[in-house]
Amino acid sequence: MQQHQAQIELALDKRLTAQKQPGSQRLVEAMRYATLGGGKRLRALLVYATGEAMGANPVALDAAAAAVEMIHAYSLVHDDMPIMDDDDLRRGRPTCHKAFDEATALLVGDALQTMAFETLCDNSLTAAQQVLMIKRLAQASGAFGMAGGQAVDLESVGKKLDLNALQSMHKLKTGALIRASVLLGALAASDYDDETLQRLERYADCIGLAFQVQDDVLDVIADTETLGKAQGADIALNKPTYPALLGLEKAQQKAVALVEKALGQLAELDFDTQVLAALAQFVVKRSH
Amino acid sequence: MQQHQAQIELALDKRLTAQKQPGSQRLVEAMRYATLGGGKRLRALLVYATGEAMGANPVALDAAAAAVEMIHAYSLVHDDMPIMDDDDLRRGRPTCHKAFDEATALLVGDALQTMAFETLCDNSLTAAQQVLMIKRLAQASGAFGMAGGQAVDLESVGKKLDLNALQSMHKLKTGALIRASVLLGALAASDYDDETLQRLERYADCIGLAFQVQDDVLDVIADTETLGKAQGADIALNKPTYPALLGLEKAQQKAVALVEKALGQLAELDFDTQVLAALAQFVVKRSH
Repeated sequence: MQQHQAQIELALDKRLTAQKQPGSQRLVEAMRYATLGGGKRLRALLVYATGEAMGANPVALDAAAAAVEMIHAYSLVHDDMPIMDDDDLRRGRPTCHKAFDEATALLVGDALQTMAFETLCDNSLTAAQQVLMIKRLAQASGAFGMAGGQAVDLESVGKKLDLNALQSMHKLKTGALIRASVLLGALAASDYDDETLQRLERYADCIGLAFQVQDDVLDVIADTETLGKAQGADIALNKPTYPALLGLEKAQQKAVALVEKALGQLAELDFDTQVLAALAQFVVKRSH
Repeated sequence: MQQHQAQIELALDKRLTAQKQPGSQRLVEAMRYATLGGGKRLRALLVYATGEAMGANPVALDAAAAAVEMIHAYSLVHDDMPIMDDDDLRRGRPTCHKAFDEATALLVGDALQTMAFETLCDNSLTAAQQVLMIKRLAQASGAFGMAGGQAVDLESVGKKLDLNALQSMHKLKTGALIRASVLLGALAASDYDDETLQRLERYADCIGLAFQVQDDVLDVIADTETLGKAQGADIALNKPTYPALLGLEKAQQKAVALVEKALGQLAELDFDTQVLAALAQFVVKRSH
């Protein structure tokens, strides 16, 4: 895991190096600030774990891993802004709009999203594979994926959501990108069948949901220092959460059950899924 | 021109129809508000004019035209926000954050950008052509294109820019996407050579700059009703403009000279460039 965390850091660093092109030095600096130096890199780790298990070209995996992390970083920068969640702290540091300014944060998110798609055009795969990856990533990020989930989330503040509504919101908001991370890893392999992709999708959906449940749990039980972001932020914003709906203990049990289900999907695959299994465990065992 | 304006409207409308997928109805509605029903559609017209002159498949042109208009629409939505230019009026109607709210406007821009890249994955071209178009559009929109120009523009408010600095800012901020529009049209054709692409790039760079000079001129001489946005906004924000640097008359002459230069590039091409020439003229003859 640490080796891949270093590898994704390097891949992102390389992409985000100021080029000898006209542009804004400050914007590139802010993009680096928002992207480098931290995070669990769960999405990148899923790309590497899936791709390597299926024999994909490692160079192609770097591009896909960087792309999903750029989309994730862009979404955090925009979500943290005052007009959205208004968070001051992220990964233990001031959020991008605090360290720079709001207009710069807006452009950082915009330009990181663009760079994610550009990055997917630069790898050693066939053009057909590249287009498939770009399409999957776009579907996962856009109006019927992450951004759509964000909009549903906005509309739900102060409302009482039931468990189904909460689940379908999270499936878009965080689940879609986690699913895309697994799929991009698989698509980088030259050989896969539909059944494998479907099992991987179910695995991803389970850990995506488990990840969100655990996030809600941590918002209740962890402290701000460990989280690297403000503890109790969900409660402060009156957001619907799993602990609020189920109670803390049942929410924790739900996360564990989802991971069991994810492991069940892996057991049916005919390649070595040890790392994918470890990542599923990591999702509920993490402390931040 | 009117036929193509109707055609792009239809292509955008089709893309932006709420799908039977989970998501936010309000977000899709706001995306439609920001994209449909107006605008000169210069970028789409450049895609069609270039592509048709070079014998490209019309269906593929719809996707490329929709993609550049989505990128343009997203940039307007984000630029108009209070943390950027703080404009209330666009195309004669309240700006997106006024008609909806700021958080929705942020997500509208985000999701429109995503949809632009997704749209380029869905056309009748080869995967190799699609990847090339996606890459060109991303380069034109990102940190070293439109978003980078926007950042330079932010940094220049209240500063004294000389003509060169102003020009290089506009080359990124508006020029890059206009250039990409012409190139995407060309890339949709099955047959082109490097010399043709280079001439088209020079044509695009000239009209891109002429467009911006004329924009600055109109900000001085037109009224708010004709413009569909607030007249005098540049002056109010103390932005550097061509009329401020050159005087009004010399700025107008510069726009005309740039169009002449663009026409000179077209004269060297061996296909029918009548429509491209008309679009170059339109850039300086428009009243809004």
